[in-house]
Amino acid sequence: MESNLQKYLQFIEDSVKAVRFPEKPASLYEPMSYILRLGGKRMRPVLTLMACDAFGSDYKNAQNAALAVELFHNFSLIHDDIMDKAPLRRGEQTVHTRWNENTAILSGDALLIEAYKLLLTYDAGKSQSLIKLFNTTATEVCEGQQYDMDFESRTVVSIPEYLDMIRLKTAVLLGCSLQMGAILSNASAENQTDIYHFGVNLGIAFQLQDDILDLYADQAKFGKQIGGDIRSNKKTYLVLKAFEDATPDQHKALSALIQEKESDQKVTNAVALFATLHIKEKAMAKMNEFYTTAMKNLAHLQISEEHKKPFYELASFLMNREN
Amino acid sequence: MESNLQKYLQFIEDSVKAVRFPEKPASLYEPMSYILRLGGKRMRPVLTLMACDAFGSDYKNAQNAALAVELFHNFSLIHDDIMDKAPLRRGEQTVHTRWNENTAILSGDALLIEAYKLLLTYDAGKSQSLIKLFNTTATEVCEGQQYDMDFESRTVVSIPEYLDMIRLKTAVLLGCSLQMGAILSNASAENQTDIYHFGVNLGIAFQLQDDILDLYADQAKFGKQIGGDIRSNKKTYLVLKAFEDATPDQHKALSALIQEKESDQKVTNAVALFATLHIKEKAMAKMNEFYTTAMKNLAHLQISEEHKKPFYELASFLMNREN
Repeated sequence: MESNLQKYLQFIEDSVKAVRFPEKPASLYEPMSYILRLGGKRMRPVLTLMACDAFGSDYKNAQNAALAVELFHNFSLIHDDIMDKAPLRRGEQTVHTRWNENTAILSGDALLIEAYKLLLTYDAGKSQSLIKLFNTTATEVCEGQQYDMDFESRTVVSIPEYLDMIRLKTAVLLGCSLQMGAILSNASAENQTDIYHFGVNLGIAFQLQDDILDLYADQAKFGKQIGGDIRSNKKTYLVLKAFEDATPDQHKALSALIQEKESDQKVTNAVALFATLHIKEKAMAKMNEFYTTAMKNLAHLQISEEHKKPFYELASFLMNREN
Repeated sequence: MESNLQKYLQFIEDSVKAVRFPEKPASLYEPMSYILRLGGKRMRPVLTLMACDAFGSDYKNAQNAALAVELFHNFSLIHDDIMDKAPLRRGEQTVHTRWNENTAILSGDALLIEAYKLLLTYDAGKSQSLIKLFNTTATEVCEGQQYDMDFESRTVVSIPEYLDMIRLKTAVLLGCSLQMGAILSNASAENQTDIYHFGVNLGIAFQLQDDILDLYADQAKFGKQIGGDIRSNKKTYLVLKAFEDATPDQHKALSALIQEKESDQKVTNAVALFATLHIKEKAMAKMNEFYTTAMKNLAHLQISEEHKKPFYELASFLMNREN
């Protein structure tokens, strides 16, 4: 897979580099080129190419659909960064910081429209199928972002609510990216459903792993500071699960912990409190639950084992990371 | 036409009232319902219904396309109001004022996506034609808004640049609304082009009339304060034309006038200065130029005079307003 993954990655990097927007108005189009050139893992477009390949068509046919999901992802990053008041993205200034908020709003809008243009380059029937899926997904991503913002100002968020939020905000776009490749390869409706759910379940597992790594990664291998979520009082699966399982005394201790200001001690205290509640183990169990479901989705898929291999390898690659 | 216009208006009002978004997350969907319920002239969806009717199909078939242009228009209002820091829209609080900027960004995004969903309810070929036109138009509207913002911080804006800005920001959506109705009525490519350009030219004429009325309307019949554009130093056709035609001394006087703070005297001074330059007459001549071109577009249209009548009446209705 490693070599195929490299092939898809190279292809999508070349494709992104070839994207050209009009020159004027520069204040609209430059930020769009800027965010696309910032890089990123290009995970979503790779999924589209991979699925198109696995279901038997030339992955290059999926170029514009793959670019569309990448453009959509970047649209959501521009707007999310405004909402989160994030100064940096991939180590560089965010669009609203480098330009201003108005430019970031409008460039984001224009990027979303560009994604639709790319999806319209296929024949009418295919375009309609792609855009239908894309519309549903795009709405869900907005819902997920809204829930994420709503949760910040709420004191109680249940585990099912949290899981639904990460499904909407992150996971459905992975499912959509895969299904788009399947659509372009004329996969059966059943295979499309399976590969979609594989992406969604893997996406939720991936996001739970993110929560776990943030506190329990090996600092030597982890790119960021350990415990960033605890330091910034983010309501991750770990914290919400701890609140859910806490005795009244532990609940009080956890509430007090959250009031503490950012420090290494705060992180140490969280690790200690979580240990008494076996939060790491519970989070890993939940992650494995979604991972196992994703594996079942793959097993159910009606294609040869040979063609499933890249998906198994992708899943294993994603779930065995240390950063 | 009056009765037909009423029929279209009633139909679109009923259609807008029937639009239902999901209940949750309320913080995403309530602002979307709110802006749609604020009202407005519904000019764009009426154009879609009218064109569908004129080219021989049941206007009710154009319901979803008409709703799509209305939703798009409201998406652009939500985002423009953030950028303009406008507290009020149609006498009520704007979305970012009633809720907050983040909610306004996201609700706007979701409204744009809803427009695409509506356009996808037609058969694949029709959807593709509608979305292709819509994509082009939506991008142009973003470009127009960006130029409008760019112009605020520029000292010199030429007349052609200004005309191009209002074409992009306002007029192309009128052309698009009409062409969508024509597409759904299976109008010929040539008829589609003519009705599109009729809408664009009429739209530019309408916008120029807006600039003229702002300073020269009869206060008794004008709903707003006379001279609002002069008071807020807006670069309208009148001001730009005055700068273009001014002698060096008049240029100095105009620059000084713009520095003055908001007052009735400032408006009186502008009227006096514009009179020496015949700005009102020049603006009306330019407006009539576009109006005449719009009439030529109509004359060229290959449908019966009977079917053209509503367009002539619409044009005359729009151009003979006093507010």
